[in-house]
Amino acid sequence: MKTPIKFLSIMFFGMTINSYAADKSIPPSHGVPYPEGWQNWATIAVSHRTDNNTIRAILGNDVAVKAARSGNTKPWPDGAILGKVVWEDTQHEHWQTATAPGNFVHAEFMFRNSEKYAESYGWGWARWVGLEQKPFEKGMQVCISCHTPVKNRDWVFTDPALLPK
Amino acid sequence: MKTPIKFLSIMFFGMTINSYAADKSIPPSHGVPYPEGWQNWATIAVSHRTDNNTIRAILGNDVAVKAARSGNTKPWPDGAILGKVVWEDTQHEHWQTATAPGNFVHAEFMFRNSEKYAESYGWGWARWVGLEQKPFEKGMQVCISCHTPVKNRDWVFTDPALLPK
Repeated sequence: MKTPIKFLSIMFFGMTINSYAADKSIPPSHGVPYPEGWQNWATIAVSHRTDNNTIRAILGNDVAVKAARSGNTKPWPDGAILGKVVWEDTQHEHWQTATAPGNFVHAEFMFRNSEKYAESYGWGWARWVGLEQKPFEKGMQVCISCHTPVKNRDWVFTDPALLPK
Repeated sequence: MKTPIKFLSIMFFGMTINSYAADKSIPPSHGVPYPEGWQNWATIAVSHRTDNNTIRAILGNDVAVKAARSGNTKPWPDGAILGKVVWEDTQHEHWQTATAPGNFVHAEFMFRNSEKYAESYGWGWARWVGLEQKPFEKGMQVCISCHTPVKNRDWVFTDPALLPK
């Protein structure tokens, strides 16, 4: 009886850490299923890019947030999903020196699965564009190329923001 | 029997919309109890201020997020809590034109309770400073003064960021 129980345990463990709820009403990007409910994920960081005038929230699923807040990001654990939500800059009407989110640009994601995505450095790279969330299908290489400056940081730009416990 | 049942319903409804989980290990600010678990609240917006070089996440409790995403913010409903998490700017080491969160400054909150906080425009104003979350006790008027430019926007600067449904 030992072998079947061990096998089932591995199955269960594997499903727990590497699967996530997918929203099948939106087509995959690069074969990666759309992550359901990312709009309610917790914050890992924020950023503002003045080269392309966009402001961003960096969110994570439960696995990613737990890893970010316990310093377990070298490497990020299997099952972690990082989401970057991107808006065009807009100037706040009532606070001239504040930049706020304008038009929604896209939401892009890195899905950590070291086995499934071994050929793309252990990450599934996906993006959905615009409020209609049209899948980006120009190839993971487009994403990887831009992330090459941080290839020694597990391909992740984001440092988790400091937060009180 | 009708009166007691109605009374109990009102009691229950009142408790549901105006109470929240307080963390009593951290002292109140301006008499407002510390909101437990705000670090996991969903994002309503982000912002970047170049007058004081800080970058921010604007988060909300469930009541606030639901209101933000359904356009029910004029006024914000009782029970809504808005949180602004503030970090000093830092330049990203691997992307020179990106501003990222540096030192944690404070987390500040607006608690909507039109009855309890009638004398401060329907909001309880609170702030906890630094990673140690020391309560700010200089008076709600300090907060209100800065928010006066948006007194006709229910005292709220934040426009909820556009998000796909």
